Amino acid sequence: MPKMSLSPPSGTRDFTPHIYEKRQKIFDQIKIIFKKHGFMGMDTPSFERIETLTGKYGDEGEKLIFKILKRGEKQTSGEVDYALRYDLTVPAMRSYTHHVNEFPKIFKRYQIGPVWRADRPGKGRYREFYQCDIDIMGSNSLLSETEIIITLEDVLKNLGLKNFTFKVNSRNILLGLLEFYNIPYILHKKVLIALDKFDKIGLQGVIDELKLLEIDDDILLSFVNDLQSQDFEKKLRHKIASTENGQRGLKEVDQVIEKTRLLSSELSIEFDPLLARGLDYYTGIIFEIVSNDFKGSLGAGGRYDSLSTVFSKNEVPVCGGSLGIERILLLIENDSDKNFQYGADIYISLWDNDLSDGVVDLITILKENNFSYEYDLTGKKLKHQFKSASERGCRFIMIYGPEEREQKKVMLKNLSTGQQDQIDLDNLARELDKRLVR
Amino acid sequence: MPKMSLSPPSGTRDFTPHIYEKRQKIFDQIKIIFKKHGFMGMDTPSFERIETLTGKYGDEGEKLIFKILKRGEKQTSGEVDYALRYDLTVPAMRSYTHHVNEFPKIFKRYQIGPVWRADRPGKGRYREFYQCDIDIMGSNSLLSETEIIITLEDVLKNLGLKNFTFKVNSRNILLGLLEFYNIPYILHKKVLIALDKFDKIGLQGVIDELKLLEIDDDILLSFVNDLQSQDFEKKLRHKIASTENGQRGLKEVDQVIEKTRLLSSELSIEFDPLLARGLDYYTGIIFEIVSNDFKGSLGAGGRYDSLSTVFSKNEVPVCGGSLGIERILLLIENDSDKNFQYGADIYISLWDNDLSDGVVDLITILKENNFSYEYDLTGKKLKHQFKSASERGCRFIMIYGPEEREQKKVMLKNLSTGQQDQIDLDNLARELDKRLVR
Repeated sequence: MPKMSLSPPSGTRDFTPHIYEKRQKIFDQIKIIFKKHGFMGMDTPSFERIETLTGKYGDEGEKLIFKILKRGEKQTSGEVDYALRYDLTVPAMRSYTHHVNEFPKIFKRYQIGPVWRADRPGKGRYREFYQCDIDIMGSNSLLSETEIIITLEDVLKNLGLKNFTFKVNSRNILLGLLEFYNIPYILHKKVLIALDKFDKIGLQGVIDELKLLEIDDDILLSFVNDLQSQDFEKKLRHKIASTENGQRGLKEVDQVIEKTRLLSSELSIEFDPLLARGLDYYTGIIFEIVSNDFKGSLGAGGRYDSLSTVFSKNEVPVCGGSLGIERILLLIENDSDKNFQYGADIYISLWDNDLSDGVVDLITILKENNFSYEYDLTGKKLKHQFKSASERGCRFIMIYGPEEREQKKVMLKNLSTGQQDQIDLDNLARELDKRLVR
Repeated sequence: MPKMSLSPPSGTRDFTPHIYEKRQKIFDQIKIIFKKHGFMGMDTPSFERIETLTGKYGDEGEKLIFKILKRGEKQTSGEVDYALRYDLTVPAMRSYTHHVNEFPKIFKRYQIGPVWRADRPGKGRYREFYQCDIDIMGSNSLLSETEIIITLEDVLKNLGLKNFTFKVNSRNILLGLLEFYNIPYILHKKVLIALDKFDKIGLQGVIDELKLLEIDDDILLSFVNDLQSQDFEKKLRHKIASTENGQRGLKEVDQVIEKTRLLSSELSIEFDPLLARGLDYYTGIIFEIVSNDFKGSLGAGGRYDSLSTVFSKNEVPVCGGSLGIERILLLIENDSDKNFQYGADIYISLWDNDLSDGVVDLITILKENNFSYEYDLTGKKLKHQFKSASERGCRFIMIYGPEEREQKKVMLKNLSTGQQDQIDLDNLARELDKRLVR
């Protein structure tokens, strides 16, 4: 045997049954809510042509793309042609554009699946991780933003999460802000990047970053002064409204907040004029879901009407949102994981290590009544069979020895309480139904 | 816009909603049966260290592995470190060995997921395709083989498939066969490869291939004569039984056939002494599921007790089976695909393109009663909203204009029958329940 590492590659995970089944259950729960809101599932291949992905994720992102070597003779040249998908959004847009004529004009998509990034692995940061997206393609209506937010809220509530707030802003507000303070166009992107770090580095950190940029001293001073003032939001609102873009943005934000509150009286949603969001493809409303219990976001999204033009002549209005599903999965972990049931509900012990005719009759009853069952595969004595049944987390073990067979009874033992009783073969299905909450 | 191909990479597929949702439904159906038999789900990463995969799939297989380029500075050197998984079995065995202490002694696994092979794409042959496996690790009992076969039969029946037969053989029978005819050990593998082609090239083809091997003329003659004789199976059985390995193999096959027939009276299962199966890691029972309606197999499997030794000092007995899930998905395609429902059950038209208070009340009723609904996002006139509802395959459209609002009624139109009636707002949930089979 060659010496070989048995762990999964760095930054990836083996999903053993108790984790796998839990994740699947949560994914299924989420999908039900998505479908309830009229979103349908789709998926794209795990890899794309390299040119589909390049130029979409900025310089830093680009470095993290996993590239696939060409096959055959080209292999030695080190040439690449494919790459693992870096997110779900760009491939989904490629796919949507390709199939657009097969879809209804307004297309509501959900997608849950893995993406790959060659990031430095760390606590909660993986190289293979799942994303969970919804998007509405083909509608300009601000009710799209409303529906995206309401659907995500519905999912989070359904998963038992509390104490989260949707922070909302609009790219048009940011544009208005930059215009009002006369910040030169060439610096817009850098200023937004600085503002986007507010959560991480705080106000002073942002101001320090701004000072590094080549902004005229008096512009910077008035901007920073306003940022530091007490009634900052009110002041800012007034100033933003003095530009055309700002006015449009404020209207968008006010409408989305009003409509979502109308639809969900419990929803916590607020305007955050400094929310910037990293990706530059956003064109209108942007939002982030923050937890009030810990630092960091549960999800984010917004409108990105121009990404489609990378793949198509026709601009398709799109609004979407994404849940930080890996983080959410961590949050809803619980103790039930420890008592994972590896086996079926009913473990059939084998008296003679064989399927004698009597046992077959038993199995037929269980099968016809849709009980989950398994029979012993240890081939060992009864004592060991009990151990195996417990180890597999089965709920009941059945004993059907010569004595039971003669009396047409089955011995049934509850493996967690230890309680056991004899049941008439004729009543088996009914009695099991009583004991097993299915 | 740069000119760019919008299709998925060669040999891969976009799963648009009507295909995606159908596949998911079938996967869910299969998982329910697997769990009913005490198999639990697991998954491994999409890629593995290259050394985990090399040397496992033969020379031909090895060429088809997708390799991933190293990141960072090593990128330019063309070095690879990871590779996309080529099947589920080898990574699952790596993962099982790694986590063995967390599992019950007998571990029953199911796994459904994509694998990648750089094969030449063709009809029904993909470079990204799903596999669907079950395995029982840790049991020597032949009842494992029985349970694998019974579980796969249960799945196929549950999916509505008929007319399939399990062909069963044992590696020990093949060994006995080769021993009986004094075929030198060095040629065993080649003879088995020739026999394995029986399905594709027929008896004469197999004989032609055998003649190309360096087998003594008299050995070849007696073997070929037997193969061509009428009562071939009977004759062969007798000869196989004269070797120790052959005897063991016959006992295995007879037992598995007897037990599976006991558990499922409808099961079609038969002995096929020439069934060889390509992969050389099998050590005991092997089987293949053939359809009587078309050429080719629906699945296959067997016992492979020594694969574990690649990863671990301890040999772990394993028996498993795999369904050709992509082929099965093709077989159970049906016309219902054409009327795919993209949208929610109920489409709420918006009289004034807005969520007025009245509409919100309506939505609240639908939400609280768990109906799937969506509201109009076209922002257009009522006529267009009807079109959008139909296009999305919604089953009902609701109209709630000023008149309806005044009368506290809702107009409900069935989009497939055209039937429409007014419903009291107070009775809405009850009336919808009657009309929607959920």
